[in-house]
Amino acid sequence: MEAVKVGLLGLGTVGGGTVNVLGRNAQEIARRAGRDIRITHAAAREYNAEDINGLDQIVITDDAFEVVNNPEVEIIIELIGGYSPALELVMQAIENGKHVITANKALIALHGNEIFAAARKKGVTVAFEAAVAGGIPIIKAMREGLSANRIEWAAGIINGTGNFILTEMKDKGRDFADVLAEAQALGYAEADPTFDVEGIDAAHKLTIIGSIAFGIPLQFDKTFTEGIGGIDRQDVTYADEFGYRIKHLGIARKTDKGIEMRVHPTLIPERRLIANVDGVMNAVLVKGDAVGPTLYYGAGAGDERRLLR
Amino acid sequence: MEAVKVGLLGLGTVGGGTVNVLGRNAQEIARRAGRDIRITHAAAREYNAEDINGLDQIVITDDAFEVVNNPEVEIIIELIGGYSPALELVMQAIENGKHVITANKALIALHGNEIFAAARKKGVTVAFEAAVAGGIPIIKAMREGLSANRIEWAAGIINGTGNFILTEMKDKGRDFADVLAEAQALGYAEADPTFDVEGIDAAHKLTIIGSIAFGIPLQFDKTFTEGIGGIDRQDVTYADEFGYRIKHLGIARKTDKGIEMRVHPTLIPERRLIANVDGVMNAVLVKGDAVGPTLYYGAGAGDERRLLR
Repeated sequence: MEAVKVGLLGLGTVGGGTVNVLGRNAQEIARRAGRDIRITHAAAREYNAEDINGLDQIVITDDAFEVVNNPEVEIIIELIGGYSPALELVMQAIENGKHVITANKALIALHGNEIFAAARKKGVTVAFEAAVAGGIPIIKAMREGLSANRIEWAAGIINGTGNFILTEMKDKGRDFADVLAEAQALGYAEADPTFDVEGIDAAHKLTIIGSIAFGIPLQFDKTFTEGIGGIDRQDVTYADEFGYRIKHLGIARKTDKGIEMRVHPTLIPERRLIANVDGVMNAVLVKGDAVGPTLYYGAGAGDERRLLR
Repeated sequence: MEAVKVGLLGLGTVGGGTVNVLGRNAQEIARRAGRDIRITHAAAREYNAEDINGLDQIVITDDAFEVVNNPEVEIIIELIGGYSPALELVMQAIENGKHVITANKALIALHGNEIFAAARKKGVTVAFEAAVAGGIPIIKAMREGLSANRIEWAAGIINGTGNFILTEMKDKGRDFADVLAEAQALGYAEADPTFDVEGIDAAHKLTIIGSIAFGIPLQFDKTFTEGIGGIDRQDVTYADEFGYRIKHLGIARKTDKGIEMRVHPTLIPERRLIANVDGVMNAVLVKGDAVGPTLYYGAGAGDERRLLR
C-alpha cells in the first residue's frame, strides 16, 4: 500500500524532532499504523538543516499555503504556533479535505470550536494530543481510556517552565527572578515569559482538558488565571516547613453550578504523588467515578527536554 | 441504532461493578461510543444481588456456554478468572464470531498467543486493558499513545496487594507475616496468597506489558519471578535510612541479547516518583526513545479499591 503523505508546517525544535522520529522509527510506526507514514512536503522560513535527518527526501518551501494546497498531501501537521497564519492554514487544510494534527494549544483553546465544526462538516480529523502535556497521551486517556467514567475533576502541572522555576526555588533556595533570568539566558524560557509565568499557557491547556473531560465547548475566557510571579523564596520555605509543596496547577472540576476552571498556585501535602513532580516534567491527575484517581506523567514538550536533569 | 448487546461471564466484585458502571454512566458511554451498550445476558453460579443494580434487565443463567452460544450477544466480557473454563469460553466466543473483553491476566499471559491467533482468523477483537494495572489505560498508552516511539523499557508496580504489604511495613514498622495475616482476615488478600506474594500475578501482567511494548509473543515461562516473602522489617528500615524504598517491580527491557523480563524486589531512591506509589496503587513507567520516561498511575483492580485509604 502506498505511504500516507504528510505535509509539515514548521521545522523548528518540535518540527525537526518530528522529522527525526518519523524517520528513525519508520518501521515500528508502519507496523503499528498498518501503513508507511512519510513527510513528503514541509514549509519553513528558516531551519537548522544539521539537526534534521532525511531533509533531502522532503520538498521544502517557504510558503506554507503551498503545502496546504498540495493535492498530494493527505495530512497536515501544524507546528508553527501562534494564531495567524496558523488558523488560516488549518482552516484551508480542512477545506481541502485534509486531516490535521497540531500541537498548538493557543490555537485550539481559542479557535478550537470553529476548527472542529469545520472538520466535522468535511469529515476530517483534527488531532491535538501534543497540545496538552507534550508526549503524555492524556487526551487519549481521558477520551478513550476512561470512556466508561464520569470524570469528576482533573488537575495538572501543565507548564514545564513554571514547574522548573518552582522546583529550583525549592531545591536551591533561589529567587524567582534569578531562576527566570537564568532560564532565559540559557534559552529555556522565552524572551517574553508572560505565557509561562502568568499562567496563560497553562490556561490554554486547561481549557482543552476541561472540554475533553466534560464534553463542553472550549471556553478560554471563562478560565480563572493566576501566575507564579507573586511567589517568593519565603513562601516556598514556609510551605516546606509545614510539609507542603507549592505547585502551579490547572484545575477543572464539576460543581453544582457548572464546570469550574482555574489556574493558580496551590499548596499540596508533600506525600501526594503530584507534589513530587519536579523540574520541567508535567503530570495530570484525573478522577473518574469508577476508576478513582489516575495520574499521567511525562515531559511537557519537545523543547523542554533539554532541561531534564 | 440498536444497542450493542453484551454477555457478561461472572457477577463477582468486578462483574457486578461492571454492571453498575455501565448502567450508571450509560448516557455518557453512549455519547462517547456512538451507540448504546447494554448487558443483556449474564452467567454466574452465585452473586450478591443487593450490590448490583438493574439485574432485572439481564437474563441470568448458571451456564456460561449458554451466553457464549447465544446468537443475540455480540460481545462477551469474561470476568470469571482462572484458566478453565475461561479459555474454552473465550475460544468458543471467538469461534462464534463475537468480540471478547477479558480482565484475565493469567489467561492472556499463558494462552494469549492461541487466543489472538484465533481472533485474527475470525476477524474479531480481544480487548484486555483491565488485565494489567486495572483501570489505568496502560495498554492503550503503550500501543497507541506512544506508537511513534521505540520503547526502551517498562517498569511497574503491578500488584496492589504486594505494594500494600510493603507500604504498611514501611509506614508502621510492621512485619510481613503480620500485615499479610491481617489482609487475609479482612478478605483483602486471597486465602492462598501465592499469586500475589510470590510475584506470579505480577509476572502475568509483565508478560503482557513486554509483549505489547516490544511486539513479541507472550512468554510467561521466560519471565524471572521473585516474590516479596523474603523481605523483613529490617530490610525496609535499612533501606529507609539510606534514602531508598523497597518496591516490587516488574521490568521489561530491550537488551543486546533480546528482551529481558523480570519481577523482583528493588531499591529505589525515595525522590523518584515511583518510589512514592503507596498502598494498593499501581504505576507503570514506560521509557520511549522520543518521549522519554512517562508514568501511568491508578488503582490496580476493582476489588482492591476497598483498600484505598
